Amino acid sequence: MDERAALRLLEGELAAAGDDAAVVDGLVVTTDMLHDRTDFPDGTTRYTAGWRAVGASLSDVAAMGAEATAAVAAYAAPTFDGEELLDFVRGANDVCDRVDTEYVGGDLDSHEEFTTATTAIGRADDPVRRSGARPGDRVCVTGTLGRSAAALELFDRGHAERANELFRFEPRIAAGRALAPHASAMMDSSDGLARSLHQLAEASDCGFAIESDRVPIDDAVREIADGDDDALERATTFGEDFELVATVPADALSAVRSATDVSLSVLGRVREPDHGISVDGESLADRGYTHG
Amino acid sequence: MDERAALRLLEGELAAAGDDAAVVDGLVVTTDMLHDRTDFPDGTTRYTAGWRAVGASLSDVAAMGAEATAAVAAYAAPTFDGEELLDFVRGANDVCDRVDTEYVGGDLDSHEEFTTATTAIGRADDPVRRSGARPGDRVCVTGTLGRSAAALELFDRGHAERANELFRFEPRIAAGRALAPHASAMMDSSDGLARSLHQLAEASDCGFAIESDRVPIDDAVREIADGDDDALERATTFGEDFELVATVPADALSAVRSATDVSLSVLGRVREPDHGISVDGESLADRGYTHG
Repeated sequence: MDERAALRLLEGELAAAGDDAAVVDGLVVTTDMLHDRTDFPDGTTRYTAGWRAVGASLSDVAAMGAEATAAVAAYAAPTFDGEELLDFVRGANDVCDRVDTEYVGGDLDSHEEFTTATTAIGRADDPVRRSGARPGDRVCVTGTLGRSAAALELFDRGHAERANELFRFEPRIAAGRALAPHASAMMDSSDGLARSLHQLAEASDCGFAIESDRVPIDDAVREIADGDDDALERATTFGEDFELVATVPADALSAVRSATDVSLSVLGRVREPDHGISVDGESLADRGYTHG
Repeated sequence: MDERAALRLLEGELAAAGDDAAVVDGLVVTTDMLHDRTDFPDGTTRYTAGWRAVGASLSDVAAMGAEATAAVAAYAAPTFDGEELLDFVRGANDVCDRVDTEYVGGDLDSHEEFTTATTAIGRADDPVRRSGARPGDRVCVTGTLGRSAAALELFDRGHAERANELFRFEPRIAAGRALAPHASAMMDSSDGLARSLHQLAEASDCGFAIESDRVPIDDAVREIADGDDDALERATTFGEDFELVATVPADALSAVRSATDVSLSVLGRVREPDHGISVDGESLADRGYTHG
């Protein structure tokens, strides 16, 4: 059973499953586990790991349009190296500072493989779900796509410093708050833009028509890619960029833009479900990285 | 570096470290990571694992005198066995039901070793800390001690069904709420009574005088122990019973007792710090299980 099959199995058991974060009693709660083998390439510093792991959970809070309240992390490693642990905590603290929330610590454990489990908590009176997109709405994405795809390549090539920089990202809490009053549906792009569109389409029972030249490809991925098509492919399918993908009525776009400094690219439109998901008129496969 | 040394190191970085749970903005947050090798003996069912892992975090919420709001868990295993996963979720759901809170799901991950990271969230207007015990206060413990010590022995002897039962416990949320308005200090007994007393003594700058015949030794540990001294030793040092250890002014004991159905044993008194920690007049070593 892969992760998606297991998640489907859980939906019957858990009312809150199926969105970026659970909502209970006005609180938004999300948890993620990351580990060395699958999530932190050789060369990832513990500072970057702390930043990225806590940031990934904060991104889920952002995807609900919530403000962030606090984050915690459990840290497990084969040995407790004091400097490594402090670096992790500093990274976790710094990403929380960036979005005006508090890192309040966690648990220590010993484990053969470096593993971290992070939880972020937020508040939202009216959280934005994945369902709710309506034909005619515009599909938007914050920031740029492909930073993590570029970082992975740069780790491989031994450019660890630049790769670590690209691996640290700003959780889109502020942009999520700006989008929240207007967005009809929202999620983060952690599994890649292509998969995000498929997940939004399934939750909202809609289609999408996207134009590829509107996809905001990060400069870093252009630098490492083998031409434009490869850059687009990496930017749209690798994922882990933790940008927000949202659907917004056309007449609300200017209000969103004036409420945030983060760039917002309009990729295309929400269509009727029978349209399916198209890019430049061709069907977009449900490809992406199934994150373990 | 062992866990305690690492925790000391973190105290400089994290204002919220050093209690059972962090408190931010009226919210109580705690996270724990547990895994096969150290926390789930052979024979532990996934149902029990889900119950126990989520219960351990709820116990930290209880130790702050908070009401529980929600719990999440990240679940990582070498393969996603659907039945095992559902059993885990059912156990997690059931322990949440027991204390009137919501299990709202989590994350799935693949990992060589079965590993779970749980987070529980609660609310407390006036959380009870480990500091605050005053000489003259009575030292109390909820329920009985030694269930987990007995379970471990029974797993070893192949009595898995009974061991699983003993491994599932009721998080003391209700008792914690009853104690909260009166307790001067509180924590849970997850590292054993002996270590809990040392931790409370350090946080509150006090001593304790305990009488061994007041320790509520669970019948299960008497059954497997080699006589009374062995039973007392196992009940006080093994830990993982997730009972509450609290200090309460003598004149508030009846109010606490009338507010909860959970048994409350008075073990002795808080003393001045130079008394140290004594059991029947003899010094109690800071022994216990340092949980990874």
